Order: sequence, then structure tokens, then C-alpha cells
Amino acid sequence: MTDAFSLHPQLAADTVPLGDLPLSRVLLAKDANYPWLILVPKRPALTEIFDLPEQEQNQLFGEIRQAAGALKRVTACDKLNIAAIGNVVSQLHVHVVARRKTDAAWPKPVWGAVPATAYAADIRDKLIADLRNALPVVP
Amino acid sequence: MTDAFSLHPQLAADTVPLGDLPLSRVLLAKDANYPWLILVPKRPALTEIFDLPEQEQNQLFGEIRQAAGALKRVTACDKLNIAAIGNVVSQLHVHVVARRKTDAAWPKPVWGAVPATAYAADIRDKLIADLRNALPVVP
Repeated sequence: MTDAFSLHPQLAADTVPLGDLPLSRVLLAKDANYPWLILVPKRPALTEIFDLPEQEQNQLFGEIRQAAGALKRVTACDKLNIAAIGNVVSQLHVHVVARRKTDAAWPKPVWGAVPATAYAADIRDKLIADLRNALPVVP
Repeated sequence: MTDAFSLHPQLAADTVPLGDLPLSRVLLAKDANYPWLILVPKRPALTEIFDLPEQEQNQLFGEIRQAAGALKRVTACDKLNIAAIGNVVSQLHVHVVARRKTDAAWPKPVWGAVPATAYAADIRDKLIADLRNALPVVP
């Protein structure tokens, strides 16, 4: 069924793809306010984590752990925020966000807090390169 | 070290205890806008999920799954929102929130969206009783 997966157009529009882990596509949000990864399991028609078979739930949890660890190492952030919300875009996706006490929304959660800010291309490309080095994604 | 755990006073003030799972204390938020559970691993000095030993991370994920399943069965909600944020109260805690398309904040995330509303005692007591039946907590 994997080949029936397609990324929701809103997620595609709001992110840059980093690459794929075995279960999840890994995306970087186009928002320079915070280094912000989004993991999307490459399975069709999922809304809740608990819609996955149990083995894949555990695999997803492992990939969230990998993404959070990579983000922490690359950004030396103060706090990680991890969430599965999906009230607007129902395709199952998990946010992993690196927060700093000096960021634009701190201490509020990031969703809807402040408008997204565009990355400077060199900063974005350096972050993507660092994250690709820290996380075993394949193109 | 388990005996050095104590619940953060802000979490204690904002919730009613449902009982304990093997790893986590399970709390019900005092907010009638949404059935809202909070899981707090009974370990001292934790901030991130990834501060737990790996076996306990997996145990926590299993308990999140149990809590989410119980909440879904009891409330027949439209969507589950699951998050570890902790920017304000740093003690590790995981939110599991039952959302309805008719609730006060939909589709926004619940944090900071609208002021908490007090439960009527009979509605709160019924919800607590139903959740205790659905989830293997011990007092």
C-alpha cells in the first residue's frame, strides 16, 4: 500500500523535504522562527498515530526520537516540542520543534503564535545540510 | 529514585488525579472545554521524553497509547491531540486531549486558546469514573 501515499498539498507547500526515514518522510518547515521538522509516515489514509499497526507505531516513535535527537544536536536548543495535532491538515504528521527561550513565540506553543518568517537561503541550506548529516535520511 | 518524584505544584493545581499507571501519574485537567489527560512519568528531574532510559521511553509511549485509546472510547471524540511541550512547566508531562469539531478552540490547539471552564461536579465525576473504568489506573 506504500505506493498509494501522497503528501498532503498543504504540507508540501509549507515545507522543504529533507529525505525519507524507513517509515516517515522528513520535512523542514519554511519558518525561520524555529528549526521545525515534520514527520509524515508514508502510509495512506492515516489520521491518528493509533491508526498505524502497533509495530509501525513503535517505529514512528523511534523515528521521532531520532529526529528530536538530531535537531537537539544540530541546534543546541533549550527545549523540544513534540506534537501530533492534525486538526487542520488531517494527514498524520508529527511536529518536532527546536525551541529557544529567545524565539519569537517563547514560551507559547508555535502553532498560530506568530507569522512564519522566510529563511535566508544560505541559513536554510546550512541547516538542511547539518540535519541531513545528523539524520539517516535518504533522498 | 522513584520516591524522589513529586508532582509540580502547577500541574497539581490545574488537575484532578485519576490514578497511576506503572510509569505515569494520570491527571484530568480542570477544563470542561475538552476532556484532557496529562501523563507525568513518576521520575524526578525530567524535562524531555528523551531524558528517560530507552525502555521507559517505550513504556511511556505505551501508556500514551492506552490513555489516548481510553479517551477516544469514553468521549467518542473527533480527533486526538497529543503533545509534549513543557515550555512553562518544565517537569516532563504529556498532553492527551480529546477534540471535537464543536469545541471552544477548534481547530486551534488548546494551549492558550480559550480560558479554562470549570466542570459541573456531576459531569466531572462521571467522566472520571468512565476513564477509570477504561484505563487500568490504581489510586
